[in-house]
Amino acid sequence: MADELQKGLEGVLVAESELSSIDGDAGRLIYRGYTIEDLARGASYEEVVYLLWHGELPTAAELTAFTEALNDERDVHDDVLATMERLADAGERPMAALRTAVSMFSAYEPETDADPDDLDATLRQGRRITAKIPTALAAFERYRLGEAPIDPHPDLGLAANFLYMLTGEEPSDIHAETFDQALILHADHGLNASTFTSMVIGSTMADIYSAVTGGVSALSGPLHGGANQDVMEVLHEIDESDLDHREWVEQANEEGRRIPGFGHRVYNVKDPRAGILQERSKELADEGESKWYDYTTTIEQYLSEEQGLAEKGIAPNVDFYSGSVYYQLGIPIDMYTPIFAMSRASGWVGHVLEYQEDNRLIRPRARYTGPEDQAFVPIEDR
Amino acid sequence: MADELQKGLEGVLVAESELSSIDGDAGRLIYRGYTIEDLARGASYEEVVYLLWHGELPTAAELTAFTEALNDERDVHDDVLATMERLADAGERPMAALRTAVSMFSAYEPETDADPDDLDATLRQGRRITAKIPTALAAFERYRLGEAPIDPHPDLGLAANFLYMLTGEEPSDIHAETFDQALILHADHGLNASTFTSMVIGSTMADIYSAVTGGVSALSGPLHGGANQDVMEVLHEIDESDLDHREWVEQANEEGRRIPGFGHRVYNVKDPRAGILQERSKELADEGESKWYDYTTTIEQYLSEEQGLAEKGIAPNVDFYSGSVYYQLGIPIDMYTPIFAMSRASGWVGHVLEYQEDNRLIRPRARYTGPEDQAFVPIEDR
Repeated sequence: MADELQKGLEGVLVAESELSSIDGDAGRLIYRGYTIEDLARGASYEEVVYLLWHGELPTAAELTAFTEALNDERDVHDDVLATMERLADAGERPMAALRTAVSMFSAYEPETDADPDDLDATLRQGRRITAKIPTALAAFERYRLGEAPIDPHPDLGLAANFLYMLTGEEPSDIHAETFDQALILHADHGLNASTFTSMVIGSTMADIYSAVTGGVSALSGPLHGGANQDVMEVLHEIDESDLDHREWVEQANEEGRRIPGFGHRVYNVKDPRAGILQERSKELADEGESKWYDYTTTIEQYLSEEQGLAEKGIAPNVDFYSGSVYYQLGIPIDMYTPIFAMSRASGWVGHVLEYQEDNRLIRPRARYTGPEDQAFVPIEDR
Repeated sequence: MADELQKGLEGVLVAESELSSIDGDAGRLIYRGYTIEDLARGASYEEVVYLLWHGELPTAAELTAFTEALNDERDVHDDVLATMERLADAGERPMAALRTAVSMFSAYEPETDADPDDLDATLRQGRRITAKIPTALAAFERYRLGEAPIDPHPDLGLAANFLYMLTGEEPSDIHAETFDQALILHADHGLNASTFTSMVIGSTMADIYSAVTGGVSALSGPLHGGANQDVMEVLHEIDESDLDHREWVEQANEEGRRIPGFGHRVYNVKDPRAGILQERSKELADEGESKWYDYTTTIEQYLSEEQGLAEKGIAPNVDFYSGSVYYQLGIPIDMYTPIFAMSRASGWVGHVLEYQEDNRLIRPRARYTGPEDQAFVPIEDR
């Protein structure tokens, strides 16, 4: 066993966790024992973050205190804004700009000198990061548009406030609720690559800014975040095609083209998050434009049932429906992965805190396959 | 086996690698088959980076071309310098400033649009990062001192140029050679936590800026980088003590105090890098101040032999001698870990390139230990 290569660490248990659990055969996701459906439909994002970090859903008084603490930390230092403006001018990609923003937040952290073992301080720092990410992201987007950033709205929750800071207009209830649900769905998902990255960094007792910066870094990879952007690009291609959308997907299938948003390493049935987002997509379609919803349901019906992907365990994942939902909320396509990070930051913080409570440095091995005894020849004689 | 918790992943083989190999019982470290002693004594840092990235030591012509390519990429964009100045003014810690610098480099990368699978482009990007880190770090240090950054010196190699950019004075041969050796010794060391972090990030096919930013993040943790700073602080404590240094270490030992720089998860005998640095520390002592060398050798002799730590497999590691060497080179103590990162960046880049050649997303599992079926209660009723 010790000599067996476990590339990708698939199935390898590296930690115990009380945060979330996935049953890939049943299509079930729970956060601390609550189903994702109950949380998405009955709680706010702030309640879910509290649950992930503190282990229990808050009372009304606890939620008020927690929300106020988050809201008090939303402002981003002018130096960070100045850097966001430079990055926007340089054409930086949003995930890279977010990576820089989170890294830079630490310079203005009031508890920089906290002991690495002081997990209460780490939690407060994590709360600051979670509160500031929406502000930095919205500012970056505004700078890209040549507009000034918009200050956070004191009366809006994290989800609604982000939509407000993008445009300066308060979102409708359905937009705010939909976005809040999307954040809940993305807050945690076991030890995916970005969460694991945060944990490896956290296992060195590096600060939480380093851990979350690493999480953003990993999530920026096309094999992790980003598939919902690909889905939206496919939906646009369908929209611009001369073919009817049913014909388009048939033709794409005949050409052997892979449609993004299907299949997941962990789920063998439909991702429960996809089902919830599908409902919201339908509601948005009913109040506005219906074509995006039609495209996605047609693709799903055709691939899952007629082409038998469902039987093969290849089903829509969360990215399949989140793209069109975000599009209907008016969010720019290349901000979809940063939004994922904005939500998942809470999971990264939660897992790092949990791991550091009983910490062990994460340091695996590689099997050396290079040459053994190379005789050194000085450069003059090479 | 599948259900066994492998916390810390100690001994778990996650990849094959031709880059470096450690024999912890023999105290042997090789890069691609060459012993660290041969490389430190016979090659330059640039030759070693070439070896790590290209698999063979360069010919003279190859080295010239490689060095020129590195030197051409040393300049750091004014926006990055402006951010370094802000961070210095805000009192940011050097590793955090470096994390932000590397993240920010990507905005000015000419090949941002390269396909993630284009590993030649990734290598060029990694070369740019490796070339720019010394410039950004030295600029940060200059800003902290209230001085303007110094432009790279066109005729100096990476090691000597860094020392030059710190002070504006060309280093002596022995200083330049010593620092070059120190960089060689730190360039790679199997799958330590920072290298593994870079690989996990790289396994999502994120860009190399993300991977190296993650490496810096992990190295910033006190359980990974940073022990040489602790060693230097102990040496200062000895220096300021009324006790003779031999008496100091006896008393510290009686008080049960742990001396940093001893013991390593991988080595059971003296770290070969410590032996090489010890030689350099002696040379620096012979030409200047001898007390730091005396303190370290006295501690080693007392703990390893008289107290029997050597028999228990607890021996000086690389950090034990690098602290006093850097101090004798005039490098500020809180720059020791950033210098480690400056060198190790080449290992991070090398491992990411090697892993991405036959990539598999790294995604382990956690054992869920939380509650199973929690009945959701709306906030009004909690």
